[in-house]
Amino acid sequence: MANITVIGCGQMGSAITFPAAHNGHKIKLVGTHLDTEIVKQGQETGIHKTLCKTTPEGKVGFKVPEGITFHYLEEFEECLKGADLLICGVSSFGIDWFCEKIIPLIPESLPVLSITKGMIHTGDGHMISYPELFEQTAAKLGKKISFNAVGGPCTSYELADDDPTEVSFCGRDEKMLRWLKSLFENDVYHVTLSTDVRGVECAVALKNAYALGISLAVGLSYAREGKEIMHFNSQAALFQQSAREMQGLLEIVGCDRDNLFLGIGDLYVTIYGGRTRMIGTLLGEGVSFEDAMNRLKGVTLESIVISQRTVECIEKRIELGLSKADDFPLLMHIGDLISSKTKVNIPWAKFEREF
Amino acid sequence: MANITVIGCGQMGSAITFPAAHNGHKIKLVGTHLDTEIVKQGQETGIHKTLCKTTPEGKVGFKVPEGITFHYLEEFEECLKGADLLICGVSSFGIDWFCEKIIPLIPESLPVLSITKGMIHTGDGHMISYPELFEQTAAKLGKKISFNAVGGPCTSYELADDDPTEVSFCGRDEKMLRWLKSLFENDVYHVTLSTDVRGVECAVALKNAYALGISLAVGLSYAREGKEIMHFNSQAALFQQSAREMQGLLEIVGCDRDNLFLGIGDLYVTIYGGRTRMIGTLLGEGVSFEDAMNRLKGVTLESIVISQRTVECIEKRIELGLSKADDFPLLMHIGDLISSKTKVNIPWAKFEREF
Repeated sequence: MANITVIGCGQMGSAITFPAAHNGHKIKLVGTHLDTEIVKQGQETGIHKTLCKTTPEGKVGFKVPEGITFHYLEEFEECLKGADLLICGVSSFGIDWFCEKIIPLIPESLPVLSITKGMIHTGDGHMISYPELFEQTAAKLGKKISFNAVGGPCTSYELADDDPTEVSFCGRDEKMLRWLKSLFENDVYHVTLSTDVRGVECAVALKNAYALGISLAVGLSYAREGKEIMHFNSQAALFQQSAREMQGLLEIVGCDRDNLFLGIGDLYVTIYGGRTRMIGTLLGEGVSFEDAMNRLKGVTLESIVISQRTVECIEKRIELGLSKADDFPLLMHIGDLISSKTKVNIPWAKFEREF
Repeated sequence: MANITVIGCGQMGSAITFPAAHNGHKIKLVGTHLDTEIVKQGQETGIHKTLCKTTPEGKVGFKVPEGITFHYLEEFEECLKGADLLICGVSSFGIDWFCEKIIPLIPESLPVLSITKGMIHTGDGHMISYPELFEQTAAKLGKKISFNAVGGPCTSYELADDDPTEVSFCGRDEKMLRWLKSLFENDVYHVTLSTDVRGVECAVALKNAYALGISLAVGLSYAREGKEIMHFNSQAALFQQSAREMQGLLEIVGCDRDNLFLGIGDLYVTIYGGRTRMIGTLLGEGVSFEDAMNRLKGVTLESIVISQRTVECIEKRIELGLSKADDFPLLMHIGDLISSKTKVNIPWAKFEREF
């Protein structure tokens, strides 16, 4: 029986603990300063405020399994005592806070499993994963912590609902990864292991830009037809181009090619995820980026942040002569959309290739 | 202005002529013995009987563009006179007939563009494409005909409806391919060219088995929840595994890796296509293969035929020690389902990998 502490009890940080709870482990969900309402309701009712299932009657919050308790941020250090594992459950927007406020508190003996998807552009045309950023942060403090991470495809509400799911855990040490897997795996939650940290993390991060890109086609068809009829030829063409560009990007970050399939599976599920699809659909309908962001006020748009970083990285590489814009026409168009340089005008002809 | 004759005027054989007609070319749609109703209605009303658009009011047949006429099979040889291009529009089930009855009538000077998706297991663990089969058939007659082919992702009714679409034309000769492209390409129909005939054709053929496999998850979630709520984690996991196995299969046929993206885009659109999804969904709900086929009587199930061939090819390779069953767990399960050895029981654990 393991004691697991989670910092950041949003949808995914909480959902990932369900299989561990079913396996008999004890979990303390500690909220950040943004999670106070979640903690309050969780303590009062055991029902998660934002991790919900959609039913014909509307959204219904999941009741957390036996063994999971909710705690306010003030109790974090207390909750670290006796913990065997720390799960980092913050969103991309909380990464800086996690580095500044949390990493200093983590004992070297305590391994970390992060669910945050994303990567950083280092400014010179290279990308690194969040676990690598965490390692660098810890190193500056003279600490060596085992940072591990989870890669999709996995939507939080379906994980909580025991839908068959295949994810990847990545980290430096095989033995640690096998132990982590043993905490979570069960009949429906299946875990692949990899020591290619950058590969796994970048593969799942890169899908953000492309899920937005594919959703443009949804918007285009809505603009053309109204909401009853969807067109999949255009979505499929974008999916094909996305897969091709993602492979090119993974080659740039320098990682195991097998990660492409992870990214593709994650791309597939993200297209249906909701938030990224919403922004892509609005942009596809011809709405400007500012108007789209206004309409979606209050919606966490990690996909936008990660898309921007991906675009910046490739633009830097183009500037340095390391990459060509024609290798990433869809990404370049997404970049133009989210920097408000243009409204939707998918460069279909640029996806054509010859011999 | 080119004269294009089509043999087999079903949905795709007809739809592909729409962009050519818009470009000002003249098209003669010649029906096989299975297409008499289509020809009759086409001659009377100009409306295609089976190439339909789904509207809130139901299915509405497309009116063919100016320049397209319908003809009965008896007029085929007459329609070949003065033709600049022959389009082979038969389904997989018509391939033998096309080889026996049509190829002998094709003059060597007349190039062919085939829309039929599929490939053949040669019996010894290798797969060849239909264009290669056509070349071999013509060679036995002492004829050398330019066989070219189209690869998806492209659903016929969306092509007819001018949805932005990206396809590949493949063939032996670059100049011929460029000319073919010039007949069809326009603002919405974009064509990539490739001389990797086997690669393009096998990539799009292989997706049949996997579209069925991914649709199993649709059935599983219907069985579990009823029709209102879909689960995408499991579909995404299957999509990831499908992409991985498709790459493995393409390596076996020996082709350009870029074709994987074509196959993946085609896989994506086929999941929503209808017929393959229907059979996969029924199997996923736990229906036996015989019952599922009975319920879908009258529905052309090319995907089943191609899936069977893919399975047989890999089983032969396993027998010959050239491949391992563990490399293709999803394909093996699909094979068991469609040979009625089992009901659905997706081998999720076999999709896990380690280092």
